[in-house]
Amino acid sequence: MVSRRYSTVTFLSDYGLDDEFVGVVKAVLRDLAPHATVVDLTHGIRPFDVRGGSLALVRAITYVPDGVVLAVVDPGVGTARRAVAIEVADGAGVLIGPDNGLLAPAVAVVGGAQRAVELTSAEHQLAAPGATFAGRDVFAPAAAHLCNGVELTELGELIDPAVLTPGMIPLPREEADGIHAEVLWVDRFGNCQLNVSPDELDGGDEPTDVWTVTLGDERRVARAARSYAELGTGVVGLVLDSQGMYSLALDQHSASAELGLGPGDTVVLAPLTEDGTPTPVALRSRR
Amino acid sequence: MVSRRYSTVTFLSDYGLDDEFVGVVKAVLRDLAPHATVVDLTHGIRPFDVRGGSLALVRAITYVPDGVVLAVVDPGVGTARRAVAIEVADGAGVLIGPDNGLLAPAVAVVGGAQRAVELTSAEHQLAAPGATFAGRDVFAPAAAHLCNGVELTELGELIDPAVLTPGMIPLPREEADGIHAEVLWVDRFGNCQLNVSPDELDGGDEPTDVWTVTLGDERRVARAARSYAELGTGVVGLVLDSQGMYSLALDQHSASAELGLGPGDTVVLAPLTEDGTPTPVALRSRR
Amino acid sequence: MVSRRYSTVTFLSDYGLDDEFVGVVKAVLRDLAPHATVVDLTHGIRPFDVRGGSLALVRAITYVPDGVVLAVVDPGVGTARRAVAIEVADGAGVLIGPDNGLLAPAVAVVGGAQRAVELTSAEHQLAAPGATFAGRDVFAPAAAHLCNGVELTELGELIDPAVLTPGMIPLPREEADGIHAEVLWVDRFGNCQLNVSPDELDGGDEPTDVWTVTLGDERRVARAARSYAELGTGVVGLVLDSQGMYSLALDQHSASAELGLGPGDTVVLAPLTEDGTPTPVALRSRR
Repeated sequence: MVSRRYSTVTFLSDYGLDDEFVGVVKAVLRDLAPHATVVDLTHGIRPFDVRGGSLALVRAITYVPDGVVLAVVDPGVGTARRAVAIEVADGAGVLIGPDNGLLAPAVAVVGGAQRAVELTSAEHQLAAPGATFAGRDVFAPAAAHLCNGVELTELGELIDPAVLTPGMIPLPREEADGIHAEVLWVDRFGNCQLNVSPDELDGGDEPTDVWTVTLGDERRVARAARSYAELGTGVVGLVLDSQGMYSLALDQHSASAELGLGPGDTVVLAPLTEDGTPTPVALRSRR
Repeated sequence: MVSRRYSTVTFLSDYGLDDEFVGVVKAVLRDLAPHATVVDLTHGIRPFDVRGGSLALVRAITYVPDGVVLAVVDPGVGTARRAVAIEVADGAGVLIGPDNGLLAPAVAVVGGAQRAVELTSAEHQLAAPGATFAGRDVFAPAAAHLCNGVELTELGELIDPAVLTPGMIPLPREEADGIHAEVLWVDRFGNCQLNVSPDELDGGDEPTDVWTVTLGDERRVARAARSYAELGTGVVGLVLDSQGMYSLALDQHSASAELGLGPGDTVVLAPLTEDGTPTPVALRSRR
Repeated sequence: MVSRRYSTVTFLSDYGLDDEFVGVVKAVLRDLAPHATVVDLTHGIRPFDVRGGSLALVRAITYVPDGVVLAVVDPGVGTARRAVAIEVADGAGVLIGPDNGLLAPAVAVVGGAQRAVELTSAEHQLAAPGATFAGRDVFAPAAAHLCNGVELTELGELIDPAVLTPGMIPLPREEADGIHAEVLWVDRFGNCQLNVSPDELDGGDEPTDVWTVTLGDERRVARAARSYAELGTGVVGLVLDSQGMYSLALDQHSASAELGLGPGDTVVLAPLTEDGTPTPVALRSRR
């Protein structure tokens, strides 16, 4: 055994906390790599929601300490879908999980995959009577071995990072009636994060304070704001959230419930001119 | 950097566990103060429920180890509401959070604020594109810096503890028909904690075993008990709970559901005399 | 104080995470035994569900690291039910909890109780105003003291392990129409674990690929599978789960919802012959 390499495992899954899945994964980590500390990112990803998991990981990744990231949203568990470990940032981090797009957006945010292996080494896994719990049997042991200093390439064969399954993050579209944006995430408070950030808007010098938001047949007015509390009761806000994305929000109420919006829904944004008519706004061309 | 000062951060919030908010705060703590251990008190405070959060903190505070307490229920995030750190118990602990009454009752229980600062030092915070996640950008860095031995006064200007927003814990009232008590908390099991403890009752030598509990127009009989299981099926108990407060409870059933009670609801308690009529009981005068 | 003995406390309860119960227990552990790491197995056991808790513990126990196991599902808290600590595996582990059957199946799995004490030593407990929170006042301090090297027998009187309350895990029954199995557990994904494993089936050389599953008046066909994803949409699978038990499952859908099954429900399994009629299968005699 070489020297210890990583001391933190950051863990995200769709396991929920009502069963012992998360606890068993952490028991395995504690058993195999007792020096490592586990940081639970969240286990509340909706069951099987690979996209939701990948977005949560992207929102968090720049705050995650050096070490191993263990992410499991894995509807294909037990099939031929690959289990992978992806090294990033000159070895400062390794992301482990199923190769189904879950890891890809976070990997891209931290600079892309430098090396990747498929987790095929049986001696670095736990034998199991059934194939349904790769978090316990495949991913957690891999994370623990890396923490203990085992070389990435001992866990399986190197694969070309270019063959890894890409993630899908939808881009906003500019159309005649405004920016067609998509709800990426509804948080606990009902705030609806959109896939639009201010520096994508070709707004010129004048900041736009009032917007129209069209949801299906309904049109609402939304006020740009920096905080929830500055919105009056019942006023829909377009609030710059903690990732720097626009979000539809209300003060101490759920915009999701009020507007009937969920992840994947589309809204059309347009600045409201002084004469009360919405005008289209141009998206800045992507860098 | 001076020597490490605190090794435990006890963390309470209304963030829930379905999103990655709690995980990101803990990632920041781990990144900035890797020696510190986080104890999660609860993150299940109802969204925006400052009072509920302050009561949970009060119930727990005497069991919290020396170190930093990080508490975030913060409907005013991003506005001019102060972010504060409050030193207590000769520096054995510091409570960090918004100055909205959340921390005040716990601070009082451990002897009151000795020093307080407003968290204004930008260099001890994380830069962020939006102002909606002070837990990540303001409170967690402050907690980590304190764990690392940074002086309280480096985090911002000292403020007079007397100007901190007070907390509100309702007191029971003595009226002609009995003690008007309020439900402070309904726990997972449906037990309804009241704002009355035995030593507030001027009961004399005779312990009162049977009480009437009036809820609106309905009158129920409740039996004093030391455990839930000693109550028969369907019997409402007035059980001395683990904080030494009276709670309305049933054996293995929810008193909240059975009685239709929630936090903030009022009930009237009166001892039942031998002839079957309720008699008022006097509240001991407050010390 | 003698030398430190255990460094891990694995913790399961029905406390949920919405209240601060779990956090306070962990605060007490951190305060009394700061060197110990807590691994949360789950706190989502249904309130008062001793059987559900004992099954979760059995599923996890072989993955739990050496140390103390703290398990609390305790409808009899505050009554004369015993609080116990049970030493197993030549002292590699101690299970702590109420003596109500919660611990018994896990104890059996790891080789049986070697020594047991009733937790009666008041000086190793926390004084409390009410008797309703033994997790905080009795069990957590016992766990912490053991971690600190306190001898088991200092925590209370030795009791004969034979008098400990046994656990109840239902066995499948062989009847004329097939194997009468019981749903042990429904997990977050809706998979229904049965109390039948393949090596209990006297299937001879031919593996049985198609089964009938009778639930009350309804008969469904279930296909044996090694993974969820290999089942077609809407196909009921009999999937070997991660404990090596058969579970009724669907691909990315809840078998529990689809079949109307919950813990404790009975289903009748029979292999489907080539001519389309179910045939009884024999259970292997229990070893």
